[in-house]
Amino acid sequence: MQGQIFTATRRVPQFREMSWLKLKRAVLVSADAEGGTKLNAFDNALLKAGIGNANLVKLSSVVPPDIEWLSEPPSFPLGSVIFVVLSHIESDAHGKKISAAVGVGLCRNEGGLIYEFSGECDGEEAMETVKRMVEEGFAVRNWKLSELKIAVAEHSVEKNGCALAGVVFFP
Amino acid sequence: MQGQIFTATRRVPQFREMSWLKLKRAVLVSADAEGGTKLNAFDNALLKAGIGNANLVKLSSVVPPDIEWLSEPPSFPLGSVIFVVLSHIESDAHGKKISAAVGVGLCRNEGGLIYEFSGECDGEEAMETVKRMVEEGFAVRNWKLSELKIAVAEHSVEKNGCALAGVVFFP
Amino acid sequence: MQGQIFTATRRVPQFREMSWLKLKRAVLVSADAEGGTKLNAFDNALLKAGIGNANLVKLSSVVPPDIEWLSEPPSFPLGSVIFVVLSHIESDAHGKKISAAVGVGLCRNEGGLIYEFSGECDGEEAMETVKRMVEEGFAVRNWKLSELKIAVAEHSVEKNGCALAGVVFFP
Repeated sequence: MQGQIFTATRRVPQFREMSWLKLKRAVLVSADAEGGTKLNAFDNALLKAGIGNANLVKLSSVVPPDIEWLSEPPSFPLGSVIFVVLSHIESDAHGKKISAAVGVGLCRNEGGLIYEFSGECDGEEAMETVKRMVEEGFAVRNWKLSELKIAVAEHSVEKNGCALAGVVFFP
Repeated sequence: MQGQIFTATRRVPQFREMSWLKLKRAVLVSADAEGGTKLNAFDNALLKAGIGNANLVKLSSVVPPDIEWLSEPPSFPLGSVIFVVLSHIESDAHGKKISAAVGVGLCRNEGGLIYEFSGECDGEEAMETVKRMVEEGFAVRNWKLSELKIAVAEHSVEKNGCALAGVVFFP
Repeated sequence: MQGQIFTATRRVPQFREMSWLKLKRAVLVSADAEGGTKLNAFDNALLKAGIGNANLVKLSSVVPPDIEWLSEPPSFPLGSVIFVVLSHIESDAHGKKISAAVGVGLCRNEGGLIYEFSGECDGEEAMETVKRMVEEGFAVRNWKLSELKIAVAEHSVEKNGCALAGVVFFP
């Protein structure tokens, strides 16, 4: 990252206060589950991941600088509005293997990138895929990768299955 | 619900201020419409539902405690950013019946869950489906269902049709 | 628009403070790119459009009154949460032409509507499509169209391609 992204050489307006919402903490989650319907399987996986009682809003997909990484989701009031980068797949194809992964590439404390992948494959393949995505994202930006975090879930579908992995942000 | 969800026995960090945005009021909406394109049919259904002039952000899908339920959407400034749990389906298959439903399960004033379903079926089937989803969501959490609210829309497609149902949250 | 939308004749509750977030500035963007995967192609197109280092939240799809239109995205801190109306398409079908467009219809300073379209077609067709969508959206609301802004991107897929167009909102 080494300064390039902060030395704005383009002559564009620059505002101090550019955001409505400050992301301060983050946690990697992953889980898989069955359910009576695909949506319930998703819901059950969210519960296992510790974010089933939140109101999730999808984000795409950058880690701000100086994020504090938690080891698991904090407890929060029911229905809290929480921002997530979420990769998930649901399937009702009995016996099929499904996987979801997120890859977080970090550049020391300066921030980073998140890439999602999900598909009908094993967890190993999902991990490899997000790893390659992170590497390309960093190469394109000329950033130096100092840390790679991956969360992955693999599931063998019985009736209605879900695999999910994500990054959850907290204030 | 009976306290289980609030007695956090997991040793996790707990923050007082866990959300950027407070959801205070909510309203159930449903509508169906035709349009010149599928997106316009969706737009027209949003207008009929009273939220066509808002900037909608999708939420997934929990009712916080102590929500005030309104009988219809309040008027609001054009372009207001408003959070919704929205189920919708668009189709250009002439003569096809499409339906969308949301089911809201509540546990007295302690909060609840919202499930969405949409598909090529009649409204009755969509209602039954979200009802089952709510029941499973409550069973999985060991919550007691004290009230079930359902909003449903059914539409017979002429050219480009849309059916939508949702829960809209206001500050 | 001419007042119709502001003279609420429906007897509904009316609140002064109806939004959590105020949208103040906006900019039209468009870009196309290749990438190692479809998601990387999307990421690369976002970078070219000047919003690749933001956390994007999807909005649907109204322009509030008195928006200041910028000529290009301002610089912002890495990972800023930014609201967008985004149309994008990814494809790995070699030689295929893909396009994405957004059309913004404005009624003087009173606000307006945004419509998205993307598909396997040339940019001309994507532009025509969003133009028709804007016209129908205005006709349905009985609004007068005073200005039409269109952003469009066209891309011929090599390996993994993306075309995107959008409206990005800033505080």
